[in-house]
Amino acid sequence: MANDQSGEWSRRKFLAGALGTSALAAMSRDAGAAPEAGAPQTPAPAAAPAQPLPAAAQERMRVRLKLIRVAAGQEPADVVITDGTLLNTITGELLPGWGIAVAGDRIAAVGNVERHIGAATLRLSARGMTLVPGFVDAHYHCESSRVSARRHAEVTLPQGLTAYFEGTHEITNAARGLPGVEYFVAAGRRLPQKIYPCVSSATPPTPLETTSGYIGYGETALAFERWPEEARGIDEVMDLPRVLDGSPRLHGVIQAALDGHRIVAGHGSPPLEALDAWTAAGIMSSHSPRIAEALTMLRKGVHLQLKTERTGDIIKQLLELPLRDWRNVGLAVDDRTVADLIDRGGMDYEVRSAIALGVPPITAYQMATINNAAHWQVPHLHGQLAPGRYADVLLVSDFEKVVIDKVFANGRMVAERGRLTAPLDAGPIDPSLRNTVRLARPVRAADFEILAPPNRADVQAYVLPPRYFSRELGPITRTLPVSGGRVQRDLARGITKFAIIERYGKGMSIGASFWELGFDQGAIAWTVNHDHHNLGVLGATDEDMAVAANRCAAIEGGFVIVKDGKVLAELALPIAGLMSDADPIEVADKLRRLDKIAGEFHPAPSLADHPTDKITFMNLTCDPWKYSLTNLGLFNLETQQRMPVVF
Amino acid sequence: MANDQSGEWSRRKFLAGALGTSALAAMSRDAGAAPEAGAPQTPAPAAAPAQPLPAAAQERMRVRLKLIRVAAGQEPADVVITDGTLLNTITGELLPGWGIAVAGDRIAAVGNVERHIGAATLRLSARGMTLVPGFVDAHYHCESSRVSARRHAEVTLPQGLTAYFEGTHEITNAARGLPGVEYFVAAGRRLPQKIYPCVSSATPPTPLETTSGYIGYGETALAFERWPEEARGIDEVMDLPRVLDGSPRLHGVIQAALDGHRIVAGHGSPPLEALDAWTAAGIMSSHSPRIAEALTMLRKGVHLQLKTERTGDIIKQLLELPLRDWRNVGLAVDDRTVADLIDRGGMDYEVRSAIALGVPPITAYQMATINNAAHWQVPHLHGQLAPGRYADVLLVSDFEKVVIDKVFANGRMVAERGRLTAPLDAGPIDPSLRNTVRLARPVRAADFEILAPPNRADVQAYVLPPRYFSRELGPITRTLPVSGGRVQRDLARGITKFAIIERYGKGMSIGASFWELGFDQGAIAWTVNHDHHNLGVLGATDEDMAVAANRCAAIEGGFVIVKDGKVLAELALPIAGLMSDADPIEVADKLRRLDKIAGEFHPAPSLADHPTDKITFMNLTCDPWKYSLTNLGLFNLETQQRMPVVF
Repeated sequence: MANDQSGEWSRRKFLAGALGTSALAAMSRDAGAAPEAGAPQTPAPAAAPAQPLPAAAQERMRVRLKLIRVAAGQEPADVVITDGTLLNTITGELLPGWGIAVAGDRIAAVGNVERHIGAATLRLSARGMTLVPGFVDAHYHCESSRVSARRHAEVTLPQGLTAYFEGTHEITNAARGLPGVEYFVAAGRRLPQKIYPCVSSATPPTPLETTSGYIGYGETALAFERWPEEARGIDEVMDLPRVLDGSPRLHGVIQAALDGHRIVAGHGSPPLEALDAWTAAGIMSSHSPRIAEALTMLRKGVHLQLKTERTGDIIKQLLELPLRDWRNVGLAVDDRTVADLIDRGGMDYEVRSAIALGVPPITAYQMATINNAAHWQVPHLHGQLAPGRYADVLLVSDFEKVVIDKVFANGRMVAERGRLTAPLDAGPIDPSLRNTVRLARPVRAADFEILAPPNRADVQAYVLPPRYFSRELGPITRTLPVSGGRVQRDLARGITKFAIIERYGKGMSIGASFWELGFDQGAIAWTVNHDHHNLGVLGATDEDMAVAANRCAAIEGGFVIVKDGKVLAELALPIAGLMSDADPIEVADKLRRLDKIAGEFHPAPSLADHPTDKITFMNLTCDPWKYSLTNLGLFNLETQQRMPVVF
Repeated sequence: MANDQSGEWSRRKFLAGALGTSALAAMSRDAGAAPEAGAPQTPAPAAAPAQPLPAAAQERMRVRLKLIRVAAGQEPADVVITDGTLLNTITGELLPGWGIAVAGDRIAAVGNVERHIGAATLRLSARGMTLVPGFVDAHYHCESSRVSARRHAEVTLPQGLTAYFEGTHEITNAARGLPGVEYFVAAGRRLPQKIYPCVSSATPPTPLETTSGYIGYGETALAFERWPEEARGIDEVMDLPRVLDGSPRLHGVIQAALDGHRIVAGHGSPPLEALDAWTAAGIMSSHSPRIAEALTMLRKGVHLQLKTERTGDIIKQLLELPLRDWRNVGLAVDDRTVADLIDRGGMDYEVRSAIALGVPPITAYQMATINNAAHWQVPHLHGQLAPGRYADVLLVSDFEKVVIDKVFANGRMVAERGRLTAPLDAGPIDPSLRNTVRLARPVRAADFEILAPPNRADVQAYVLPPRYFSRELGPITRTLPVSGGRVQRDLARGITKFAIIERYGKGMSIGASFWELGFDQGAIAWTVNHDHHNLGVLGATDEDMAVAANRCAAIEGGFVIVKDGKVLAELALPIAGLMSDADPIEVADKLRRLDKIAGEFHPAPSLADHPTDKITFMNLTCDPWKYSLTNLGLFNLETQQRMPVVF
């Protein structure tokens, strides 16, 4: 009988684990019953046998069967939203009169949902509103908000962000690898905002820097095994030289992703001549293309995740083409401080900006929903308002201006008119994410001294220009004075000193160099330092640099501004040295104050706007950065060779 | 050091298997080295450590790194195609002058590919041609061609079919479950045509019939584990009543698919009032919607896989809407005999027909390529001509008429002007797929007698109408004469007798009934009998029915036509009673001969065209079939209750 056969299959599988091919074939041959002699018989229809579902699968099935009953009208919905116009992101239509019925955290039915209303059903009118799927950010770093996953959700849920693909290289570099992924898994399981932490491909970003984490093939495969629902891919392949040279670590991570049927997210714009190789490596997306390469990348199969502020030119180019099919173009925020999120918005701002740039509104919403969800292979969970998907629904009162009146997430109203309707709980924060600024000893002013060759009145120095992440960069050699055998700043020309201090308790290596960055007084120290997140410090005097660095370590990381030995402003980011669990309004205020005071120190004009945010992006080691100072020294990233600081 | 940490992670993972959360956290805390005292040090950049990649992953990585080198221009391509116009299915553009460089079985580069030409590179001009990605069938049953995977590839590769998603419920019902999936995995690994066998959700199709296989949660999960690259989903959820009633077997299969991040393919058109429940169950597609439901299905998130012949009305409806976004509309062939494939074509015919129906040509090609590949979550392998994808390229000499001049698959030219350029090898056919018609004893004429209640000159009988798979069906009660206590045919009114005989050695249960099907002489026996594939036999006399059935068993299944005790035509299908490994031309000839002779037996008008193909679809037990005869008796499928044959 079929049932017995099934039992046999299942028993053998669960007892013996994976079977060899021959065992499989042999089993099936055995399983065919021998022909029975005798008269024809007419057995009763066989009942479905009990299946050996694991308990967790059984529970998921139970919830799904309940959803089916509600969808079938056999049980009432928990929530029914009627009278609105539904944006269908798949067909690209606005459907007047289409409502939504919700059961638990999912959509049970769409269309005419009157029959799903029961006595206990919460009924909501969306008259005059457009029903839009919750936004899905295709590429995001919660850490860049400076606040914890919970605090970040408090700010971004009211903006319609109900799911995001979190690039974890910030936290995994700062918090010893996979525990950083686990932090976002654990928070996302508690919050109505779905967090999909992607395993970092950039931990460490390159061999040219020291971080606390290490992620290779084994760690990546382990993460997929541990968190199959959340870890949907890897993020974000940045190290172009090692993509091309076949680096075992980086390609091990990519291989684990491809073997695990996961998505391989990329970064930046490889030069056109490297683009085929970059794509052939398995990289599937970029959130930071440049106008010179963007269209070619799209044509070569790369999913573009545009940030309207930085890539508005690309959007205009696509509109002018005109691009016939936008399915592989999405929107992303990537990095944004909580102050900026509060001031401008998040994905809502991106959609609004895309529309302002001329993208047809329906297309703009598709870019923030289904295009991203389909790329990440979760269109059955996100990005469209259809049965089975998460009941993440935005009630939009002005479609073109993206004015969000109410936000539903996981089937419950979580925000109304920009305000959270109930407190959020993301559970406790793992203590292992604390105390990540581990200096072997206090920093001393002498640590920042840069010695000159003997008997020199001046030296040549490689001085980083204010913005040195560009492929088109002039010579960076400058002449600097020497005093007492030490090379000196030239503050009048805006040349200050800065250093990167390894902060993970691995020996406290320090790289120090000069930077044409302005800041003619005081010192600033910070631990948000993409992507190694070592302790950075710049300053007009070595003494203030030491004070700022030590204070920054004492508050477990964050930002500290010092002048004449006194702390003028600071923000503690004790979660991995990157995030705060404090009230987002307070954190935003402190960020603004940091910017204000740093601005008074005369930063270079390119840093005038949000200087303390901008300095966090200046020490990357990926393309198109041409040079970088790390804790291991000053590097030419094109040659991947260390450079002398002075000569 | 980071490297040691990695080794530790990996060792622990591979020694201990999955780790508990607390173990993970504890490990990472331990792994952070204690701060070292002493002076700052500047270690040399760390080399990437050796990673414990499994050997198979290492080999995949080696091949990928080779592809990267070719893509980067460091090694020459194997094949370069230039001078054509490339169809970009992602952007929806035709790009003149874009060529393709191939390394191994993948595309290394697209665009200007001159630099990839080396001394040994095969260079091909595609002047005047359009380069199109190989077609991807979203829903297909190779078995319905009547020929083996290899023979099927011989016919369909020249038609541009380079990949298909194979619904295995035919072979898994006939060949004891998973070995049927394995057959397609093994064949696909040898052929240049990629076969993605989907685990059957319909084995058995319902509890109302007996088949040789059983697939539940455990079998499905095992298949995903065994064949992760090939088994990308389940196919095709058909049993609407059990979708809605929460059947443990069916929902176990669906749960395994959802838990495994696989695709859940559906079938048919649930009634509108059941559509939300059907979609909420997790079903993601349908290849056989009806005009009444199709647009609503699309709007509710269902991927439509249209067959132009049967669903041309839907295509017209979508054109008239007009549908703004076609991404969730694909094409599929589903079932087609090798005779029909040769006469009309396969996916090439579907594209041609879609264009003839008014679909813009680029959209029609998208429907046969990227739309299907994206739905099945393999856009990084199929559906677009971009680096990293399989080098499956069609050189199309007439874009709108879909005239395929050359076919590349896995980087090699496999067909030119409709003819295979080299023989194909799919390896040996597993002997366990043979001898699947296992009757306990020879069939006797008396097996088909239908007894009347005592002392009756006539009886009422439920007589199946010629085409009874319709929701709109009149009464099916007919009066039939009785002779010698046996209910008689009424051939003058076209009422013949037929039977379904369990053929898997499980007791030889026989269901017999009447059918208003014509066929006023001889008998036909067949083992291609969707979806249970038991032995069907119909005939004007019980004696000829017995001869035909026994002969059909003797040739290991297939089709047999008998008249007056003599075999007039036959086709042996010894692979699972479904497929032949003989020359496709011969098989097609035999199919045509079977149809010709069966046609002379006066089938009902609805069967006049291809009668021996049509009878294979008449005994399904899924919606919209309203009644069905199985080996267990005659059933009302709406009530799922057995019906008396006569009363």
